[in-house]
Amino acid sequence: MSVTMPPEAAPTSSAPATPHDTATPHDTATLHDLGAAREKRATTRSALAARERTAVLEDRIARNPGEYRVLTGDRPTGALHLGHLMGTVANRVRLQDLGVEVFLIVADYQVITDRDDAGDLPATVREVLLDYLAAGLDPERSTVFTHSAVPALNQLLLPFLSLVTVSELERNPTVKAEAEAAVLRQKRGISGLLLTYPVHQAADILFCHGNLVPVGVDQLPHLEITRTVARRFNQRYSAARPYFPEPDALIAPSTTVLGDDGRRMSKSRGNALELRASEDDTARFFKRAKTDAERAITYEPERRPEIANLLQIGAYFTGGTPEALADEVGAGGAGRLKALVTEAAVEGLRPLRARRRELASAGLRYLDEVLARGNARANEIADRTLDDVRGLMGMRY
Amino acid sequence: MSVTMPPEAAPTSSAPATPHDTATPHDTATLHDLGAAREKRATTRSALAARERTAVLEDRIARNPGEYRVLTGDRPTGALHLGHLMGTVANRVRLQDLGVEVFLIVADYQVITDRDDAGDLPATVREVLLDYLAAGLDPERSTVFTHSAVPALNQLLLPFLSLVTVSELERNPTVKAEAEAAVLRQKRGISGLLLTYPVHQAADILFCHGNLVPVGVDQLPHLEITRTVARRFNQRYSAARPYFPEPDALIAPSTTVLGDDGRRMSKSRGNALELRASEDDTARFFKRAKTDAERAITYEPERRPEIANLLQIGAYFTGGTPEALADEVGAGGAGRLKALVTEAAVEGLRPLRARRRELASAGLRYLDEVLARGNARANEIADRTLDDVRGLMGMRY
Repeated sequence: MSVTMPPEAAPTSSAPATPHDTATPHDTATLHDLGAAREKRATTRSALAARERTAVLEDRIARNPGEYRVLTGDRPTGALHLGHLMGTVANRVRLQDLGVEVFLIVADYQVITDRDDAGDLPATVREVLLDYLAAGLDPERSTVFTHSAVPALNQLLLPFLSLVTVSELERNPTVKAEAEAAVLRQKRGISGLLLTYPVHQAADILFCHGNLVPVGVDQLPHLEITRTVARRFNQRYSAARPYFPEPDALIAPSTTVLGDDGRRMSKSRGNALELRASEDDTARFFKRAKTDAERAITYEPERRPEIANLLQIGAYFTGGTPEALADEVGAGGAGRLKALVTEAAVEGLRPLRARRRELASAGLRYLDEVLARGNARANEIADRTLDDVRGLMGMRY
Repeated sequence: MSVTMPPEAAPTSSAPATPHDTATPHDTATLHDLGAAREKRATTRSALAARERTAVLEDRIARNPGEYRVLTGDRPTGALHLGHLMGTVANRVRLQDLGVEVFLIVADYQVITDRDDAGDLPATVREVLLDYLAAGLDPERSTVFTHSAVPALNQLLLPFLSLVTVSELERNPTVKAEAEAAVLRQKRGISGLLLTYPVHQAADILFCHGNLVPVGVDQLPHLEITRTVARRFNQRYSAARPYFPEPDALIAPSTTVLGDDGRRMSKSRGNALELRASEDDTARFFKRAKTDAERAITYEPERRPEIANLLQIGAYFTGGTPEALADEVGAGGAGRLKALVTEAAVEGLRPLRARRRELASAGLRYLDEVLARGNARANEIADRTLDDVRGLMGMRY
């Protein structure tokens, strides 16, 4: 095939990145890696504003959760790992449990933006769904659906594409970075699907009138295209009463979880601790985890990233702070730290894993039903939105 | 609005173009004007091959019309005119009457590829539909549908976009010409919808397994992207048994109909003879029509385009040849020629106009029913195709 896109763990991906709340909204954090450093500098000011806005939003969510609808999701490229849980999944469960309506898109079409072979998608989608449910997403309150199952959502791509210019798409950091990477690797360039992917995201978010999108600070430019699409659509077709919300970014606390090789945790790097792993595998993962040559344990994320990572994981599962955990271990060194973190992770993941085994052993029918219900609900909403959009655009005949 | 696209009658459109069988498949002939001259040189060889292929195809169609399905259509930018009838519509009726199944897409989303305001689309769509039916398209045998009414067709855009690179899209003559024109006019560039329009066309043609697309010679590059999409989809997802046909181009005889100002007939230039015009307006149109200073009438398309145009129109309606008509008029001059052509056009259009008045006076219900039935049929086919495509791509959960 002539359209070959860089794999997730492309060697050009060297910039640091945060894997937390899914990249606007899909988990394309690695694509994003390429442009992250540059983007970070450019967005410092808007990042500050977004953080302030997030504090206001969190306050409002706590008081009126029913006013918010979150759209977020993942690319089904494999079972979820600890980076997903700490970065995004736990935050979604938190929002759901606060009473916010959560829509979770399993972005199957996004898998082929940058690769030819999507793998065994039905199997992967089920693994992701198992992870969601095991982590506490409640299908009675949250809606899980697959991108390819909602034609009316996908049709929104066409009117939305008329509202943005090609140069605006090319300025998107992910698109830009991928285009540059393609030149470096002498590939034939990015696919049409990758170029238009910020507009798919606009459709994913706006089809359900999502007004809240959990993102990392460095992913703000992605959401900006969705906001632009909503604004221009309203100006052109619904000036009297804005039809689409301009969704707000809910900045997630920056959580970069590292794999056992000290690089960002990623399935394709083979350095991940999968949520579904056994307790033995969990122990082995932490045993392998990189540390440094200093004996005493201190929490210094910039200078000692591997140690800081272990402290963050430990603190996540014990409910403490990394600083307190560092003090506790102190001269105990990396061995003692690993023992504590292993125990905390094994204990912390036990209920999730028990629930996962229970769901998996119950057979596929329940999972298929959950997805079928989610897809039906997404279709119902998308059909209504598309009908409204056709009416507003004068295309109801 | 920031996304402003050039109007149809953009001053940069100076290259000659043929308005016949709709630009692959939509009537974007004027967009196409910009790149036509350059493209013409580049495609002479493939044009020759396509013409030879067309002769073979016409022979096969005559013998086995049931083997073919045609997809073609128009952008609903106004009621149809004489250029449409002679260039495309009559050819579609011919194919239908030969027994070929004809699908006619009213490409409403294409209207906003290059303009902000689509006008009164429901009214325009009805005018176009009236013109189709009056010209002889039979809704019992042909399927007329609107682009925006078929979500499963539109969803095909996503997998298809993954099969082409951005640079392949940028090389499309229409896209390239529009991008250049935008730079010249210091506009903010083309919209995402225009860049991706060759891929919408692939979806329009392939959703119904269209295997025959009537095009002008200069529109061959457009069809090439559809063929590429079909070929790559088959290679990647359906290697054992190709799922999509690689549609054939049916080259239409080149018919450039000029308006009363001697330029290509186009609604937006205000130089068109609409099919729905009165007989008086028809007479006035030919009275205004440009001629030249030479007395004797000869058929010399290159040297005397305005006279040749009148001769072609006269010949079209009388069933003769332009050469014979020129001989008949001879020293009678332009006055005599205009009288003959006016009479031929008025007579030739009389049944069409009578049928049109009849349909129009019967109220909207019949038209709406025709469209509803066409849309229902297109949806049925598109749903089936999308289901197949999801199955082949491993996205059936």
